[in-house]
Formats: sequence, structure tokens, C-alpha cells
Amino acid sequence: MASNSDEIGPRSATTIEHWDHEADVVVAGFGVAGAAAAVGAAQEGANVLVLERTGGWGGAAAMAGGFVYLGGGTPLQKACGFDDTVDAMKAFMTAALGPGVDEEKIDAYCEGSVDHYHWLADDCGVPFKESFWGEPGWEPPGDDGLQYTGGENAAPFNATIPPAPRGHVPQMQDKHVSAEKGGGYMLMKPLTDKAAELGVRSLYDMRVQRLVTDEAGVVVGVVAKRYGTEVTVRARRGVVLATGSFAYNDTMVRSFAPRLVGRPAASIEEHDGRAIRMAQALGADLAHMDATEVAFFCDPQLFIRGILVNGRGQRYINEDTYPGRVGQATLIENHNEAFLIIDEVAYEEGMSRPTATQQLRHQPRWVAETVEELEAEIGLPAGSLQATVELYNRHAAEGTDPLFGKKPEWVRPIGSPIAAIDLRGMTGGFTLGGLRTSVNSEVLHVSGDPIPGLFAAGRCTSGVCAGGYASGASLGDGSFFGRRAGRAAAAC
Amino acid sequence: MASNSDEIGPRSATTIEHWDHEADVVVAGFGVAGAAAAVGAAQEGANVLVLERTGGWGGAAAMAGGFVYLGGGTPLQKACGFDDTVDAMKAFMTAALGPGVDEEKIDAYCEGSVDHYHWLADDCGVPFKESFWGEPGWEPPGDDGLQYTGGENAAPFNATIPPAPRGHVPQMQDKHVSAEKGGGYMLMKPLTDKAAELGVRSLYDMRVQRLVTDEAGVVVGVVAKRYGTEVTVRARRGVVLATGSFAYNDTMVRSFAPRLVGRPAASIEEHDGRAIRMAQALGADLAHMDATEVAFFCDPQLFIRGILVNGRGQRYINEDTYPGRVGQATLIENHNEAFLIIDEVAYEEGMSRPTATQQLRHQPRWVAETVEELEAEIGLPAGSLQATVELYNRHAAEGTDPLFGKKPEWVRPIGSPIAAIDLRGMTGGFTLGGLRTSVNSEVLHVSGDPIPGLFAAGRCTSGVCAGGYASGASLGDGSFFGRRAGRAAAAC
Repeated sequence: MASNSDEIGPRSATTIEHWDHEADVVVAGFGVAGAAAAVGAAQEGANVLVLERTGGWGGAAAMAGGFVYLGGGTPLQKACGFDDTVDAMKAFMTAALGPGVDEEKIDAYCEGSVDHYHWLADDCGVPFKESFWGEPGWEPPGDDGLQYTGGENAAPFNATIPPAPRGHVPQMQDKHVSAEKGGGYMLMKPLTDKAAELGVRSLYDMRVQRLVTDEAGVVVGVVAKRYGTEVTVRARRGVVLATGSFAYNDTMVRSFAPRLVGRPAASIEEHDGRAIRMAQALGADLAHMDATEVAFFCDPQLFIRGILVNGRGQRYINEDTYPGRVGQATLIENHNEAFLIIDEVAYEEGMSRPTATQQLRHQPRWVAETVEELEAEIGLPAGSLQATVELYNRHAAEGTDPLFGKKPEWVRPIGSPIAAIDLRGMTGGFTLGGLRTSVNSEVLHVSGDPIPGLFAAGRCTSGVCAGGYASGASLGDGSFFGRRAGRAAAAC
Repeated sequence: MASNSDEIGPRSATTIEHWDHEADVVVAGFGVAGAAAAVGAAQEGANVLVLERTGGWGGAAAMAGGFVYLGGGTPLQKACGFDDTVDAMKAFMTAALGPGVDEEKIDAYCEGSVDHYHWLADDCGVPFKESFWGEPGWEPPGDDGLQYTGGENAAPFNATIPPAPRGHVPQMQDKHVSAEKGGGYMLMKPLTDKAAELGVRSLYDMRVQRLVTDEAGVVVGVVAKRYGTEVTVRARRGVVLATGSFAYNDTMVRSFAPRLVGRPAASIEEHDGRAIRMAQALGADLAHMDATEVAFFCDPQLFIRGILVNGRGQRYINEDTYPGRVGQATLIENHNEAFLIIDEVAYEEGMSRPTATQQLRHQPRWVAETVEELEAEIGLPAGSLQATVELYNRHAAEGTDPLFGKKPEWVRPIGSPIAAIDLRGMTGGFTLGGLRTSVNSEVLHVSGDPIPGLFAAGRCTSGVCAGGYASGASLGDGSFFGRRAGRAAAAC
């Protein structure tokens, strides 16, 4: 192999004369998946060492809203008065996160969800406030603990699957004072405190570069770099990869998820895909590399009160669904072009409601007395927006939306004056594809067999999302399968 | 590694005591890419052996329509009176086959296209008849040699990129007598004849199972199975993988291109992705695994004369574009739901025109006097189809289609009686993603470096198509980069 391969391909343990560090379980990355793996392994009695590339724990998780997607009847769901079942959760995740979801993973995740809640809340001390936020929004404006975050209570799912809110957000402290005390921080702080309490060691500024394998092909350690110096770390039982997505690896994004080129969001520059590459060099398989979370940069309090139309003036989604579904439909199915059509009364009403995303409250770009005028100002084909609004209003007068099934409470004829907000190109996101892993977080070789000694979780893996997304699914499967990775590695 | 890995992972040359066969260049697969590789290698003076899994040459190519996507001013284009340039070809392929095309590959392909035409026609004797088929259709009904096969002369491309037809189809013989003498057969017969003339040897019923590597990691042969017996084949210079797509590997399709689950088309059962897996086991990289060709099972002579609407009664594409673009838009952007709305006069006119795809001339499922009645019969939301037809007719009366830019010659108000053809679920296709290769068809390791001794071409690789497709692009890049694979392997 040429030089580059030498740098990312596996290194033979026989070439390592001295191990700088050693542990039962070595975890690469101290975001949510790494922290969960560390705690999971330590709880099984393993000696654990976490190698983190940056100067501190947290990863992208600590900067996130903090949703963890949980259900099947968690104490928080019950306290807020919601019924949920494992079956309803499975049905929803299968329908909303596909096509092509890993059914075994969905099953394990849903069946283990209540237990995972207890582990987070009781074992690790993640605080969940027993209150529900029911208004439209990306996240609660205050410290409420529960919210719909996947469109469970909207078309097309609510017609056939009993809805329940499953977005569990750790209780924020001083949210408006410090972004560092948001929901994601309040997930990561208890998890990493728990890790420390269990004796987990951590080393910072450690860039994991290569896996180390023995003569039988078992992963027995890693080679890292610290300020340019090579550091060898032996893993007596297993290595857990938890270094995040490839959203900031331009080559990989272009090769696998090209619609996301130039628009990474909710991810950090350290998300360079290296762990995926290191494992691929061992013959690891991949899955759903094109899948992406897609945020839509507009406040749901506004767009739920109007209609979203594409570049041809056509509606394309029920505006009362999860805003991430709006983002995906806009970017993937509608050339990343959207306009919010909203009348003055609805706009003012939306602006008067609470929101956690003030910065997404855009001003109208065009205002007119009639739809015809507005259509001309935007530059939409003559008659196109008029036909759309006429049809919408005709049914809205009866409180229905037969095209997309928006709920009656949000269906209201659009009046005058009328405005349009320009939402073209207002999307961004992170990658959801990665290493193919088993339900025990073993990294799977293309043969289908686990690669011995190698585990992974979080966004360097393909988790519960095959194509769709719900807020909390990423921290959810990162923590769920992270914990499993740690336990499985400890058991080696 | 466990047993499965042993069966697909590389085998060490040191464990092989006896080579059953030996050649300079060993080619796996005798479809278009394999045949082109064999000829390319033999023309460089290499001793070549082709291992084919079935009982004869041909692969999926021999059963295909036979288009080869060529341009930049080929003799056939000139003879038919069309101007084309390398720049126009590059611009079109970049726009239509993306997002995320491999720019180096597009450049090489376009710059080498006229030379490739000469190689096919002059060196190998592939017959191209100097005549152009200009009517709507998947392929010419007769033996014409040139056709638009990518939507070059339709919106949105024709507004900015000078259009030229680039679908070059080998002259068919007795097309209506024997499917085996179609365009694909007339591509493969000369190529394989040429291979035989150059002394290329071929062995059939040989299933390539594993790659063989030496101690430095160089690929030096393959292990195959013939009627269950292991056969070892040494490659003195290089191995070329050319065994086709993964459209018939359910696990891979579900993991990478789940919308295609249950609907493989224009591919053969041997397309099981094994070559991709064998190379991945060496650390080979992948690209664009979600990309798929999508056929739309309706005769373009019909649907160009009406309007296509989705499950909400909305138009979604200009009906005069390449039918494969219609297929992609239907499957990926419109939930695989389509209805053709067409009046009696247009339907009868379409049915009276020549077609190569008589079997795709579906009968209307619903017929009515008014759009309102038709809409109700189909079960579309009240007013939805009426709004769509009214808007279309309003502009059609002036010969325009401002929503999608359908050309004036195909824009005509829809009258009465009016019918709808049910085209829900009428798509199928094959996978376009695969191994990442260089412009010289070297299989690239995840490090970015070539894997020494290993080459690949055709649908086990990611070629010129990142997401979009044009008929002829697959046989086109299969033959173009197949030839390059053979030449590069011969030069090792």
C-alpha cells in the first residue's frame, strides 16, 4: 500500500513495541455515544479510557437541543398524560425513518426504550421536567421536558398509528443566559459526571488515527496523535468508535450525500468521517450513506399558519408536521426551493406566540393585497399561486386539507393582505449514514460477521434512521447503542 | 475472522500451492465492461483470460436496448446533421447526472468520447446506422442509430446548454424477429468477436469468489468456483472486476438504495454485488450507493401528449423530457404515484405513432366527459385536478408551459372526453453506485490510493452517474472505463 493507506489502514500489533496507555475498553470520542459507551462499559466493571480529539467532553451533543427520542410508555410520557406502546413506537419509527430501516435495530431500540429512560434518568441523573410543550416549534422555548418531534400527531402517520410525543429533552438551566446550559449540555454533563464517578479516564487532544489488529485480525488498540506525537493505546477487550458523522468531510459528502454539500449543520468540524474510513480499511460495511437530517430554517410558529409552496407555486407538504420532514421534502423533493405564503393576521399571530428559535422568524420579502399581485412579485408562473391558494381556501373554508391532511385546527383560509417569505436554500443538516453495526453495536464486516474487538455507535454508524429523521433519534440511538457498545466491549 | 469473512475476504497467495489458470490480465465478468477490458488489455499485448459466471458472454448488456452515450462531435452525430462539442457534453452530463458527479471522470469521458466511438466502430466493428430517430420513445422502433436519450433538448437543460442527441445505438438486425439481435446484442457480439480475434480466452460457469493478494497487498489473482470446485487463477499484471451491479442483492439494495427494493429492472440475477463486497474487504471505497436508474413503464408517445400528475393531482415534470427523468421524479420525489391525464384526441394520436415499446401502451383506467368527473373517479381531492388542468390549459392556449418549460410543440390544451391511465408503482431500475475508481479504473482504497493490481469498471463501480441518468450512460461508461481498466492492467 502507498503512504496514505499506511496512515489509515490497520497497523499490526507486532510492530508496536510499547503501549503508551492501556485499558479494557478504549472509546474514541467523548460525545453522546462515547460517553454512553464509557458508562456502559464501566458499569460492567471494565476499566475504560476515552480518547477525545478536542480539549473537552461534549461533542456535537453538548451543543444540541438535547432531544432523546424515547417512548413505549416512559415515566415522563405517563406523567404528562400520554399513552404510548412499544408497538406504536415501532410502527411510527419504521414508517417515518425509512424506507429501509434496520428492523432489528428498531425493535431493540423500542423494546429497550423505557429501560433506557431509567438508565439516563435514574442511573446517570439526566433531569427531565414533567411538563409537555404542545405548540409548534423546533424545541420548547422554556424547560419543558416532552414534545412531539417527529410528526407523530400529523399526517400521514396520525391516520393509522396512535400518536405520542417522544422527544424527551433534559431540563435546561438558564437557557437564555448561556447556550452551554441547553438541553444537550444537560444530557452530556450528567453522562460524563457519571463516567468520572465510575472511574472512567479520559485523555484530550487525542486524534485517533488507525486501528491496531493482532495476527488473527482482532482489533486490540488504536494509534492516536497528540500534538503531532504518536500515542499507542492498547484495548484489552475492545475499541468503541464514537467520533461522529462525516458531515465535514467534503469528499465523503460529495460521494455519498451530495445534496448536503456546502450546508452542514448541527454538527462540528471534527466530524470528518475518519472512524468510518479506519473501519472500512478493515472491510467494514456501510449503510444508508445518503441519509441526512435536514433542518428547515424557519420558525414553525410561522409556517404552520400559512402554506409552503415550491418553485412552481405548488404546496408539497402538510405544514403541521415535524419541521425536519419539511426540510427533507424541500431539499430532496423540491430543489431546495420554498416560499411561505401567509396573510397578515396569521403572521402576526405566529409572531406573538412563544418560540425557541427567534432567529428563524424571517421578515416577509414580498407583501401584496391580492394573490395575483403576490404571485407576480415573487415571479411565480401566472396563475400558479392563485390556483394553489384558491384550492387551499376552498377546502379550508370547510376546515379540511384533503391534499395533505393538515389538521383542522391549523387550516384557515388565507386572506389579505398577504405576504411571502423567501425560504429558498434555507436548509442544512448532518449525515445519518455510516458503519453498519449489529444490535450489539459490533461493527459488521462486509461478510456480515462482526469484526472482532471493534464496536461503534452514534453518527459514525447507520442507526435507526434509514432516510427519515425525528429530533432525538440521533442522540437517542447514539446513547442507546453507545451504551450497548460499551457493554458488549466490556464483555469480550 | 469468522467463516463468512474467510469466504469473501482476500486469500493470501502464500496459501495457494497450485494455479489452475494464469494470464497477464484476468477479467471477472463478460458483459460490456468485461469485454471492453479484455479487448483493451489484449490490444496492449496482454494475455487475457475472462471468467464468466454464466454459460456465455453478454451479461445484462446483451439484453439491453444497446445505447452508448457518446458525443462531442462523433461521426454519427455529424452524419445526422448535429453539432456537438466536448464542452456542451460536459455541461450536460454535469447538470443531468448529478448532483455530485465525479468531475475528473466526466472530463475524461467527454474528452475521449469521439475516440471511443472510433474504437467501438472502427476497431471493434460495432455497426451504427447513420440515421436519427426524433420521435418520443425509449428507443427507436427501427434500426436508427441516433436518438436523444437524456433530455438534452428539453427543459431545464435546453435553456442553457446547446443540445445534441448522444444516444448511439448499434444497428439492430431482425429486431422484431429475435430479441437476441437487439442493440445490446449488436454491441456485445462485435466486442466479444474482437476479443476472440485478439486471442482472449474465456472460461464459463466460473464464479469469482475471492481476491488473492501477495504479502505486499497487491492483488495477484482470484479464487473462483466452477460447479462447486475451487479454481485458482493467477493474474500476472492485474485483475479487472466487471461483474455488474448489486440490483439483485436484496440486503445491499435495502441498505443503500431502499426505494428500489422489489423493483429491479434492466439487470440480471447475477448482479449480486459480490465484486463490490470482495473489494470492500480490501478496504476499497464506495460512491453514490443510493443512485439508481429508474425506468418509467409507459410509452413516451402517450405521456408526452398529456400531463403527468402525482397523487395530489399536481404536475411534477415536463412530459417531453427523457423518460428516465420521469421515472426518477416519480419514484424519488412523488412517492411512486403518477397518473397520465390525456384527452381522446391526444391518446389516439399517440397510439397511431410508431413505438419500440408497444407493451407500455396502457389502456386508460378511467374515462369521463369533464375533468371534475375524472378527478372524482380517480379519487383525487376535489378541485385538485381541475386546478391543474385549468392552469395548464390557460397557458397551453398560448403555447407555453411556464411551470415546467415543456416545448411549445407538445403543449396543447386538454379537451374532452378525457381519460386517466393509472401509473402508480410503474417504475423499476438498477443500481448505479459501487466501487470508487480512478479515471484509469483503478479501484481506490479509502485512503484515496489505488489498490495495486485491482481494476474495475461497469456497474460494480460508480461511473459517470452520481444521481441522474441518461440512456447509454451505463453501457457508455462500462465500455469506456472497461477499456481503460484493461489497458491500465496490461500496463502493470
